[in-house]
Amino acid sequence: MNEQWWLAACQPVDHVARQKAGQRQARLTKPSGSLGRLESLAVELAGLQGRECPHLEQPWIAVFAGDHGVVAEGVSAYPQAVTRQMLHNFVAGGAAISVLAHQLQARLEVIDLGTVGGEPLGGVHSYALGPGTANFTQGPAMSVAQCVAALDAGRASVERARQVCAGLYIGGEMGIGNTTAAAALGCALLDLPALALTGPGTGLDAAGLSHKQRVIDSALLLHQHAGSEPFEVLRRLGGFEIAALAGAFVACAQHGLPVLVDGFITTVAALCAVRLNPACRPWLLFGHRSAEPGHALVLQALKAEPLLDLGLRLGEGSGAALAVPLLRLACSLHGGMATFEEAQVSDRPA
Amino acid sequence: MNEQWWLAACQPVDHVARQKAGQRQARLTKPSGSLGRLESLAVELAGLQGRECPHLEQPWIAVFAGDHGVVAEGVSAYPQAVTRQMLHNFVAGGAAISVLAHQLQARLEVIDLGTVGGEPLGGVHSYALGPGTANFTQGPAMSVAQCVAALDAGRASVERARQVCAGLYIGGEMGIGNTTAAAALGCALLDLPALALTGPGTGLDAAGLSHKQRVIDSALLLHQHAGSEPFEVLRRLGGFEIAALAGAFVACAQHGLPVLVDGFITTVAALCAVRLNPACRPWLLFGHRSAEPGHALVLQALKAEPLLDLGLRLGEGSGAALAVPLLRLACSLHGGMATFEEAQVSDRPA
Repeated sequence: MNEQWWLAACQPVDHVARQKAGQRQARLTKPSGSLGRLESLAVELAGLQGRECPHLEQPWIAVFAGDHGVVAEGVSAYPQAVTRQMLHNFVAGGAAISVLAHQLQARLEVIDLGTVGGEPLGGVHSYALGPGTANFTQGPAMSVAQCVAALDAGRASVERARQVCAGLYIGGEMGIGNTTAAAALGCALLDLPALALTGPGTGLDAAGLSHKQRVIDSALLLHQHAGSEPFEVLRRLGGFEIAALAGAFVACAQHGLPVLVDGFITTVAALCAVRLNPACRPWLLFGHRSAEPGHALVLQALKAEPLLDLGLRLGEGSGAALAVPLLRLACSLHGGMATFEEAQVSDRPA
Repeated sequence: MNEQWWLAACQPVDHVARQKAGQRQARLTKPSGSLGRLESLAVELAGLQGRECPHLEQPWIAVFAGDHGVVAEGVSAYPQAVTRQMLHNFVAGGAAISVLAHQLQARLEVIDLGTVGGEPLGGVHSYALGPGTANFTQGPAMSVAQCVAALDAGRASVERARQVCAGLYIGGEMGIGNTTAAAALGCALLDLPALALTGPGTGLDAAGLSHKQRVIDSALLLHQHAGSEPFEVLRRLGGFEIAALAGAFVACAQHGLPVLVDGFITTVAALCAVRLNPACRPWLLFGHRSAEPGHALVLQALKAEPLLDLGLRLGEGSGAALAVPLLRLACSLHGGMATFEEAQVSDRPA
């Protein structure tokens, strides 16, 4: 590694703006605390944006795709070809995240880090780091160079978001097999057995689930000698898209761009980002609680409380995108409601 | 009672459209079930709207206000004058629901059923059923005529919504003391002691809470001889705005207009509507789970699973309004995503 840019300082939170926003909330015409999470969300965004009344400018959605060598072990309900097929679908507008981005008037970009088969796709940023990662039950998923390139690709996406003055960054992912990689990586980072984070992904049955768990346990055993340094754990057990997400999240925090984290895989990437650079944590907001059972433990490790809990388990950034209207409305309420004085409404006796 | 219109038939659900929508969901480019609640929501709306691909036309938000005689017992943290002050604030645009209606491009109407003091307010539908209800620890909250007039006022609001072809009806409420009325009414309908449904409302402390509970228990004791006929329970323990909401919900179901129910008070009104006319239940969707502790039991009695759980306890229809974008996005995903065939994406082996 020539340059470990991901270790550089993150932007600080503006505690003055945050405090002013908290004071403003207390003067709005409603019982104190009665807007629940929307109050704390507005106050948190005020601290991140450095202004008493935050606004949600255009969200940027980047979907990172990669294939996974570990699918050779038979860990997914879908064939590997689906990763590339879905890249077409993202660009053509037929995928869930495409529909959501359109409805939310968000910018959507699609990044192929390295998938199996075929030529670069039109409308997709292609990196071709390899035909998927290597099978991590046999050796490291990525070389050092590949892992650095994937982190760099995440940072490059954030640069593009900043060029259009995006106000929120959502990272999504696509990659057949990536709940296996995310579970392995999460287990290694949190020192948990495979059982704790292995779930059905796109829809494994009970037998498939036990097999997936054994595959992950064998990978954890193979790589345990390598220690717990987060970059090394990421390159051994992660995936191209997971590394790119981790890189993007750190870069967002370094540039002061709030992140809305999606589900299980992106939350593992967020955990990885926080292990690489703990100062990025305040910049991470969490969109939803996934139906993938391992998500709860990873959220807990990050002390994260997501906004939505709708039984989603799609990925692509969809759960984060669905939470965008809540962020917008939290800002509108915070800035648009009258204060008790303005509306001449009696506040409760102190 | 001259005419018990609320007993008339409700619109049936279109099971063919519902089934077609379910089949469409299974063909969309995502693992089956991976959009969780958004899938069932789109299918449910398809059945209510009678079309395979539902759309969410303009939401209508009606905020019903009324004062409560029981505030003489000292059950609220805020003075009674706040009910009318907030009516001003709704119309002037400074209240939470005003901001939300504006952001959601929803129509907002404000209905004063009967509040204490002053003249009719500009921009408000005024009924003047009385200067608040009577104190139900002394006798019935409403006369038969008042309760019928309040139910009628709810129906009239639904007529106005239908005139502009509203696609969704949200009922909100404002009334200092109305968590007390809602708790008493809910306890009587569900045969529970006050303890089960009494909560802090706008912010009672522990002493205030025990006092409120004793007030409700004394009212339950006073009225228990009157039996469990829902209209009679409603008029004895409800409030003008609660009766109007119940009337509006039944009228929506009779006209085939889906309802998005808000928090504790409106859910008690929904329970009352279902007791008055059980066939209205399928037309009720639930926006959020309130922080008011009694809400959970009333939701359970209605077998209702709300979409959001954000610690809100404001009322005004705010929690339902916040869920509107989820309904819109559920419809957009359902209608806008590509099928596996269209996108040439491999589905998983059957």
